[in-house]
Amino acid sequence: MSLANIKKSIRNVPDYPKPGVQFKDITTAMKNPQIFREIIDTMTEYFGDKKIDYVVGIDARGFILGGALAYKLGCGFVPVRKPGKLPADTIAEEYALEYGKDKLEIHKDALHKGDRVIIVDDLVAIGGTAEAAAKLVQKLGATIDSFAFAIELTALKGRDKLSRFADVYSLIKF
Amino acid sequence: MSLANIKKSIRNVPDYPKPGVQFKDITTAMKNPQIFREIIDTMTEYFGDKKIDYVVGIDARGFILGGALAYKLGCGFVPVRKPGKLPADTIAEEYALEYGKDKLEIHKDALHKGDRVIIVDDLVAIGGTAEAAAKLVQKLGATIDSFAFAIELTALKGRDKLSRFADVYSLIKF
Repeated sequence: MSLANIKKSIRNVPDYPKPGVQFKDITTAMKNPQIFREIIDTMTEYFGDKKIDYVVGIDARGFILGGALAYKLGCGFVPVRKPGKLPADTIAEEYALEYGKDKLEIHKDALHKGDRVIIVDDLVAIGGTAEAAAKLVQKLGATIDSFAFAIELTALKGRDKLSRFADVYSLIKF
Repeated sequence: MSLANIKKSIRNVPDYPKPGVQFKDITTAMKNPQIFREIIDTMTEYFGDKKIDYVVGIDARGFILGGALAYKLGCGFVPVRKPGKLPADTIAEEYALEYGKDKLEIHKDALHKGDRVIIVDDLVAIGGTAEAAAKLVQKLGATIDSFAFAIELTALKGRDKLSRFADVYSLIKF
């Protein structure tokens, strides 16, 4: 197994979600048992020496990798979700979409000062959702060790936006 | 660690999503590293001897447990998602909500005849979403080995609806 094999297993879906966009579909990679394992093991190697308390996973594809990473790293899992999806008291953070805005929420009691977290999603493009997740983590007083993504679309420069918060790790770059 | 400790770690949120409902919030259980690990390990023990090819996780909380279970079992992960969220060709299945309907989708090429799967979600109530997921799996010709839930609300009898498709496993019963 190699990064080249992982990269090849990611399906390109042209014109999704709209004409001209080449969507990177990670479902074909996660469906392959060896490749799914390799993605998690390689990401874990990078974080294995760090002292991480929680994996913060972003709704919804970030939950798949985030759940597996939290298990492998021996961390707790904390979800950041779309509005109205978390049942207890939350704080929210808006972020810009191409047209309009969206919002992410986290449980108010999910994190505390002194907690060290990694923020996980499947893919980073312009970095808007990950940035909103970072602001939520910081509002609760916790420390962001790193962002971790399976896929980075380097041309969209999400890394520039996020690196002012913490280290940015990505496994596969397009 | 024991099932009683896992059960105690699940937060009860009264009157969510509406007055009179006692919502079982699994986020407090998954946040605790020992309890998250115990949930996955105990569920894995149950499935460890079976020959499972894929974990089918239901959008969105089913992705957290599903991702960790797929990793631990050495399976591939296949998502079942809300409409419009999967980028390639899909098939859909409607299911009834208390008021109105909703829909779940799966990629057309996600599963094939001969594949053995477990369908995973955090919680089973009346079983409507899990039943829709089961119908999608069957439409693709795959075989459902079992349903796996962290929490079962036994009074809502989802088990009766699902057991005509396959074995139903749940870790914690309320």
